[in-house]
Amino acid sequence: KRQGFPEVIYGEGKEPSQLIDISRAINAKQENVFVTRVDAEKAADIQNQMPAFTYDQTSRTLFLANGKERHQAWRGYVAIVCAGTSDLHVAEEAAKTAEAFGAEVRRFYDVGVAGIHRLFEHIHEIRQATVSVVIAGMEGALPSVVGGLVSHPVIAVPTSVGYGANFQGLSALLTMLNSCASGISVVNIDNGFGGAYNAIMIHQIANRSLSEVNTD
Amino acid sequence: KRQGFPEVIYGEGKEPSQLIDISRAINAKQENVFVTRVDAEKAADIQNQMPAFTYDQTSRTLFLANGKERHQAWRGYVAIVCAGTSDLHVAEEAAKTAEAFGAEVRRFYDVGVAGIHRLFEHIHEIRQATVSVVIAGMEGALPSVVGGLVSHPVIAVPTSVGYGANFQGLSALLTMLNSCASGISVVNIDNGFGGAYNAIMIHQIANRSLSEVNTD
Amino acid sequence: KRQGFPEVIYGEGKEPSQLIDISRAINAKQENVFVTRVDAEKAADIQNQMPAFTYDQTSRTLFLANGKERHQAWRGYVAIVCAGTSDLHVAEEAAKTAEAFGAEVRRFYDVGVAGIHRLFEHIHEIRQATVSVVIAGMEGALPSVVGGLVSHPVIAVPTSVGYGANFQGLSALLTMLNSCASGISVVNIDNGFGGAYNAIMIHQIANRSLSEVNTD
Amino acid sequence: KRQGFPEVIYGEGKEPSQLIDISRAINAKQENVFVTRVDAEKAADIQNQMPAFTYDQTSRTLFLANGKERHQAWRGYVAIVCAGTSDLHVAEEAAKTAEAFGAEVRRFYDVGVAGIHRLFEHIHEIRQATVSVVIAGMEGALPSVVGGLVSHPVIAVPTSVGYGANFQGLSALLTMLNSCASGISVVNIDNGFGGAYNAIMIHQIANRSLSEVNTD
Amino acid sequence: KRQGFPEVIYGEGKEPSQLIDISRAINAKQENVFVTRVDAEKAADIQNQMPAFTYDQTSRTLFLANGKERHQAWRGYVAIVCAGTSDLHVAEEAAKTAEAFGAEVRRFYDVGVAGIHRLFEHIHEIRQATVSVVIAGMEGALPSVVGGLVSHPVIAVPTSVGYGANFQGLSALLTMLNSCASGISVVNIDNGFGGAYNAIMIHQIANRSLSEVNTD
Amino acid sequence: KRQGFPEVIYGEGKEPSQLIDISRAINAKQENVFVTRVDAEKAADIQNQMPAFTYDQTSRTLFLANGKERHQAWRGYVAIVCAGTSDLHVAEEAAKTAEAFGAEVRRFYDVGVAGIHRLFEHIHEIRQATVSVVIAGMEGALPSVVGGLVSHPVIAVPTSVGYGANFQGLSALLTMLNSCASGISVVNIDNGFGGAYNAIMIHQIANRSLSEVNTD
Amino acid sequence: KRQGFPEVIYGEGKEPSQLIDISRAINAKQENVFVTRVDAEKAADIQNQMPAFTYDQTSRTLFLANGKERHQAWRGYVAIVCAGTSDLHVAEEAAKTAEAFGAEVRRFYDVGVAGIHRLFEHIHEIRQATVSVVIAGMEGALPSVVGGLVSHPVIAVPTSVGYGANFQGLSALLTMLNSCASGISVVNIDNGFGGAYNAIMIHQIANRSLSEVNTD
Amino acid sequence: KRQGFPEVIYGEGKEPSQLIDISRAINAKQENVFVTRVDAEKAADIQNQMPAFTYDQTSRTLFLANGKERHQAWRGYVAIVCAGTSDLHVAEEAAKTAEAFGAEVRRFYDVGVAGIHRLFEHIHEIRQATVSVVIAGMEGALPSVVGGLVSHPVIAVPTSVGYGANFQGLSALLTMLNSCASGISVVNIDNGFGGAYNAIMIHQIANRSLSEVNTD
Ligand SMILES: Nc1ncnc2c1ncn2[C@@H]1O[C@H](COP(=O)(O)O)[C@@H](O)[C@H]1O
Ligand SMILES: Nc1ncnc2c1ncn2[C@@H]1O[C@H](COP(=O)(O)O)[C@@H](O)[C@H]1O
Ligand SMILES: Nc1ncnc2c1ncn2[C@@H]1O[C@H](COP(=O)(O)O)[C@@H](O)[C@H]1O
Ligand SMILES: Nc1ncnc2c1ncn2[C@@H]1O[C@H](COP(=O)(O)O)[C@@H](O)[C@H]1O
Ligand SMILES: [Mg+2]
Ligand SMILES: [Mg+2]
Ligand SMILES: [Mg+2]
Ligand SMILES: [Mg+2]
Ligand SMILES: [Mg+2]
Ligand SMILES: [Mg+2]
Ligand SMILES: [Mg+2]
Ligand SMILES: [Mg+2]
Repeated sequence: KRQGFPEVIYGEGKEPSQLIDISRAINAKQENVFVTRVDAEKAADIQNQMPAFTYDQTSRTLFLANGKERHQAWRGYVAIVCAGTSDLHVAEEAAKTAEAFGAEVRRFYDVGVAGIHRLFEHIHEIRQATVSVVIAGMEGALPSVVGGLVSHPVIAVPTSVGYGANFQGLSALLTMLNSCASGISVVNIDNGFGGAYNAIMIHQIANRSLSEVNTD
Repeated sequence: KRQGFPEVIYGEGKEPSQLIDISRAINAKQENVFVTRVDAEKAADIQNQMPAFTYDQTSRTLFLANGKERHQAWRGYVAIVCAGTSDLHVAEEAAKTAEAFGAEVRRFYDVGVAGIHRLFEHIHEIRQATVSVVIAGMEGALPSVVGGLVSHPVIAVPTSVGYGANFQGLSALLTMLNSCASGISVVNIDNGFGGAYNAIMIHQIANRSLSEVNTD
Repeated sequence: KRQGFPEVIYGEGKEPSQLIDISRAINAKQENVFVTRVDAEKAADIQNQMPAFTYDQTSRTLFLANGKERHQAWRGYVAIVCAGTSDLHVAEEAAKTAEAFGAEVRRFYDVGVAGIHRLFEHIHEIRQATVSVVIAGMEGALPSVVGGLVSHPVIAVPTSVGYGANFQGLSALLTMLNSCASGISVVNIDNGFGGAYNAIMIHQIANRSLSEVNTD
Repeated sequence: KRQGFPEVIYGEGKEPSQLIDISRAINAKQENVFVTRVDAEKAADIQNQMPAFTYDQTSRTLFLANGKERHQAWRGYVAIVCAGTSDLHVAEEAAKTAEAFGAEVRRFYDVGVAGIHRLFEHIHEIRQATVSVVIAGMEGALPSVVGGLVSHPVIAVPTSVGYGANFQGLSALLTMLNSCASGISVVNIDNGFGGAYNAIMIHQIANRSLSEVNTD
Repeated sequence: KRQGFPEVIYGEGKEPSQLIDISRAINAKQENVFVTRVDAEKAADIQNQMPAFTYDQTSRTLFLANGKERHQAWRGYVAIVCAGTSDLHVAEEAAKTAEAFGAEVRRFYDVGVAGIHRLFEHIHEIRQATVSVVIAGMEGALPSVVGGLVSHPVIAVPTSVGYGANFQGLSALLTMLNSCASGISVVNIDNGFGGAYNAIMIHQIANRSLSEVNTD
Repeated sequence: KRQGFPEVIYGEGKEPSQLIDISRAINAKQENVFVTRVDAEKAADIQNQMPAFTYDQTSRTLFLANGKERHQAWRGYVAIVCAGTSDLHVAEEAAKTAEAFGAEVRRFYDVGVAGIHRLFEHIHEIRQATVSVVIAGMEGALPSVVGGLVSHPVIAVPTSVGYGANFQGLSALLTMLNSCASGISVVNIDNGFGGAYNAIMIHQIANRSLSEVNTD
Repeated sequence: KRQGFPEVIYGEGKEPSQLIDISRAINAKQENVFVTRVDAEKAADIQNQMPAFTYDQTSRTLFLANGKERHQAWRGYVAIVCAGTSDLHVAEEAAKTAEAFGAEVRRFYDVGVAGIHRLFEHIHEIRQATVSVVIAGMEGALPSVVGGLVSHPVIAVPTSVGYGANFQGLSALLTMLNSCASGISVVNIDNGFGGAYNAIMIHQIANRSLSEVNTD
Repeated sequence: KRQGFPEVIYGEGKEPSQLIDISRAINAKQENVFVTRVDAEKAADIQNQMPAFTYDQTSRTLFLANGKERHQAWRGYVAIVCAGTSDLHVAEEAAKTAEAFGAEVRRFYDVGVAGIHRLFEHIHEIRQATVSVVIAGMEGALPSVVGGLVSHPVIAVPTSVGYGANFQGLSALLTMLNSCASGISVVNIDNGFGGAYNAIMIHQIANRSLSEVNTD
């Protein structure tokens, strides 16, 4: 765990009681708590005991802020880019993660390759980001197109959205690994958290340098 | 075999002597002969015996015209679209096939998704085609992007160009099958012939209707 | 979206409320609305709010006609060919799609390769179609046989019907991609919509030429 | 080994000297010797030492008859059915195997599903066989069609002939395993020997019964 | 359908009402009806309307005999061989199928390769069968061992029983296709019906010859 | 292409003459040229014509510096981490790429997970890097272990080194995608170039911020 | 079954009544009974009839001790090593199995490769074990690291814990099979029982030798 | 490396000069050197420089004994079991490895499951071994059968021997992982070295206990 960052709990497969125990222990250390992969029912159970938790249904995340200022405000923002409604769960897991770590997030959510003009309407603003997290299911082509248009790192997140020859996200995963655009690296299928976490590390590098210099 | 079209021989796995025998039989019926998947050495052997054959090394095809006019000139053209040097063999197999069937072909060969502005420079001309054959290896995203920009049918041809998680073209194949753009159908990996053949059938429909009407 | 065609919504993974919002927006533009992948329960929810929608259970589609004439009647028909009861959902998704786009559809639904005489009883009528959509699960051999018997384009739709070494439609998909009949192109497993959409594009080309000429 | 049948050696991966040693030992017992998977060069080495061997290049088999009458002539014949030139190696491995075991073989070699009329020209004669061995590469649909037309057992042999999404015969293998025609069972990819061996066991059953009865 | 045999309906994916309609039509022709892949609930629905149907829960089959004698009694028996309790559903689908077609069936159900002495206790009786249907899940090795011990044809049926690297029967399927014992052919995973149907065709050949001769 | 960076050519599948033409065009613009995937023979052909090229056999890269200073020296270094001799080709492709872009590279080449003490001897120095490129074949576990020990981004590069159940790098690729350490993203199998390129983008971010600030 | 060991029943797919019958038969022979893969509901049914059974929910096992001393106490212990909460079911299946066979088990359950210092805190005690069973899901790297640190045999058990490119445990399985540490062998995905059984055989060898010698 | 054991070098992908350097360094420490995966040509190069090396062509191994007694003679033997000529390379890699580590090896090399009586002729002697390494290609069923007949640990080694649906050893690998016999663990495809190494660790445990006791 890095200084000033929330502690992250992977909620899948853990009982509400287990999650509450871990969360309380973290909270006792005056750290923020961020829990991923929590469905609505489990979240309700936990909030019952720990009402300080905020639940976000789309991203399936719980967040508990302990009130301490994590770090001075970061400059710049992280772009979260995806095609539309179907990948929203994963995109929001990424967005909420980045926000839980203190980054400003800008969402570009209706920019699939089959209607590429919508991407172009926003490309200037995407280009200004420190780093992009690009989420795509089905054929997974979006990171290649974005990667060719921006000059910052692109973290590609394949999703399991699709059917048939999609094979639960394998199609999008292979597409992204084979991208002919440079500057793209890939995380696991549906791993919105991981995509954002890698982006945050880069965002932090950009800011750390600045602040280190500033404090000189 | 349709009227006025060349007879096509699949050259792979056939001996020069077999190819010569079949070609002579076709030629005797005063038909054009078109042979695919012929390497340079095999082509030389055949041309030795049948110097009327023209060999094209990039597409690995042999063509023998018997001089008869196949059909009155077709209107419109077929667009062959691909990303660059590596898919050239397959793209040219498609282009030479379409030409052997009497279509005008326009080639758009340097328009990959990682440098999408080059596609945009040509998109107006691609849009005017009757049908597009879009060839792509590696991540295979090009047909999705083209399909979103044109309103005619797109025949997508995945190629085996790539390495690693490309798995001999599987990556591009899955991408194309999962395309979120409508109006895309797919043929086998590296099947430039098949891509062009489907395009020709559509090109013919457009022209047949016209000419039938014209002859009224 | 092409002129005079319905707007199509992919219903899977969308909430009834989302589908209603989108449908109302389209309807307000006086366009027809066609929704695929809607189960009976979701359809009932939507019809409750928008009783003008017609639901078809086999194809799992909703259709809402806005009363405007889409286009002058098309000549010719699209053949939808499949083997039997098990692929009916996908075949009807294709048929209803083609009809929603204004085409006449002829259904040939009991013509599997294991009883090939039934195919032959209908082959004359299939041959007269502009284009065929051939749907098959299990071994997926039907498009190859049809493709060898007709001289128009065949759009092949593999289905996930089968068990064991079918691997959720992979078997039928590979069969169709490897077809030794020419003039066959393939869409994703269970993608009846996509199969029909490609057919409609071709059907439109045949008709457009005619009508353009007619209006001269 | 069954009585009166040749001993069969799988030649792949064995040295000429090993094959010669085994062959001599069998010959010494006055048995016929049948060797599969022998390329031309290896065959020449062996014939050099044992000129009594007959080599067949297409099937890549060696046969050495010891002159003894194996059994009284069998009634009926085995049909070997395949699509064309590309599967010939496997089809002939099957045919030569069946002949080495003493069966009459009838070859039907140009009857692929993409040109199904050629199958129909021969179907009466195929139907009269005791059993059919049906060999197919690429999409592998032939056994399904044949199986639907005959009422004897069909042994299906997928071949590795094809490219791209054929995946070295996987496509044809899955097709055959998923056949919706009854009465089809499958052996390994390219296993012409195995296809014929199963056919011979059935052919023998038909004949044994007869002869047992006859000798009463 | 062969003379005197029941008509077989594949029950999966068909509604009770559909199954009843088809069954009544067959029964009206005075044929026996045999339905596979019917769960207990669906069977109860059908029996409610057609109480003449007998349901067998283990094999999930329905049988309706119309009282006519199918054929004179067959000589010999079919061996159904499997390892134990887990493959019972598939083994009984095979056994009930063979019985529905009029064959005597002998069951050898506790003879897995990990305790091979139990196979040896029964091997003499298995050897006397006309043909064996050998069913196995997990590693699927039983057909190889049986095939090495008997000299009649073995029809191998892989099952999806297992977990982990079993991949829903893929493991057993590959094992059987790669068997180094001769005289083994394979049907689809869990296809007990198909295994028995192939066995019946062979059993019929043995008997037909006899009876044809007898009637001379 | 980013300012001051070399132009990179993917050498695989391109003829020497093609590579020379492209290189000359780049050189004419006074840019550095960096070519990957060039075997020794092809390199010799090119050096024959353009002796200014330096060839490195392990990494299979060609470099041509045009003498201009790319940028002021960067602070910090990129760590290239791998297990040993077998992954050297890929590791050096990464190292030479990073150097061609002007970064200082530190190599940690004998630190596989099976002898983890060697990793610990160097971990302090690895931790000081801006970013790590971690290359591993066989089981591909190294990035997980490194990722758990450092707090900067890890770019993981699976290699195709291994045999059997390695499946040409699939094993290492899946391992890396499933890493339970945070802060790891993955590029294609054997893509040393891609791994380094992503690292360079991050390294540049760290330095750009600094220099931007410095120039204030 | 080895002397003094419990009889083990694989509970999956067996009815409570079947399990009770088998258990009673074993108990009648005065043997201990150990049942794996029993969910809580099924366990309750069985305990209802046979209250002597002890059920453990985490490992999903039932144990019934018949009171007889199995063997004199064994020296040494078996180490069960895994990363954390998610693999607990499989780890405890292994642990309870080893205990049912009479071994002392030491559990090391929070030692994943992403936080390798926790492994190092316990490595001395792990090294003293006779044999280790190392359980891991996701990337499955733990056995490689442990194998490099201990000099006794490591039995690696991949689990299906993970998501996306984990493919139900395939990722961990391949990792373990490709381990570059020597002295690791692998059992099926989620096969905690199998992992422990192999460990027990080795533990017994160590002890048997001792005791045999002692009794001299 | 354990005391008194040879140092093992994995020869694949290493240059003769590299192998010579490593070997000399080991030899200088007065350790035995054992090199695996060395083809005949590479071996000749090395022996040219270091004539003390003994090369074994079947196992493709080099051994250099430094004359020191490794350990007092071990009691018992390791059984190496396989089906026949095709798996010999892998079996001998295992056998030579075990011998290089000082164990007595007994070879049982003609005992495949398709002719199981040959296994039974030797089963008594196999049973007496401390541990068995069972090697099998094609269907890979041998370890299951052996595992059911012996009560010591079985290390199973799948080989890539086979064709078609063997998929380079995948078939045998899956068979072994799914074995229904207990006491079997598996190493990588063709990993004869690994199979033997695991066996040696067990053999050593049996002997160490004895000798430790003896020295008391
Ligand atoms: N959605 C997610 N997907 C993958 N990894 C996650 C996710 N959420 C959290 N994690 C990782 O899981 C770790 C916590 O795992 P655990 O100790 O099981 O709660 C965190 O530090 C993250 O690295
Ligand atoms: N490159 C190709 N790929 C796939 N199919 C082809 C190719 N070239 C020709 N064909 C098809 O193969 C048929 C001829 O096959 P054959 O009778 O073996 O020569 C032609 O009619 C085409 O349908
Ligand atoms: N059943 C279907 N399968 C695949 N694509 C579909 C299907 N139905 C609709 N679509 C496509 O999905 C688009 C609408 O997607 P959406 O914006 O998510 O509603 C339509 O324009 C169609 O191209
Ligand atoms: N044939 C083999 N297959 C797999 N691993 C081997 C083989 N031979 C040797 N090894 C392992 O490779 C290690 C040496 O690897 P290296 O340092 O690359 O020479 C040895 O200690 C063995 O653990
Ligand atoms: Mg970029
Ligand atoms: Mg379009
Ligand atoms: Mg056709
Ligand atoms: Mg039939
Ligand atoms: Mg046999
Ligand atoms: Mg880290
Ligand atoms: Mg070790
Ligand atoms: Mg055993």
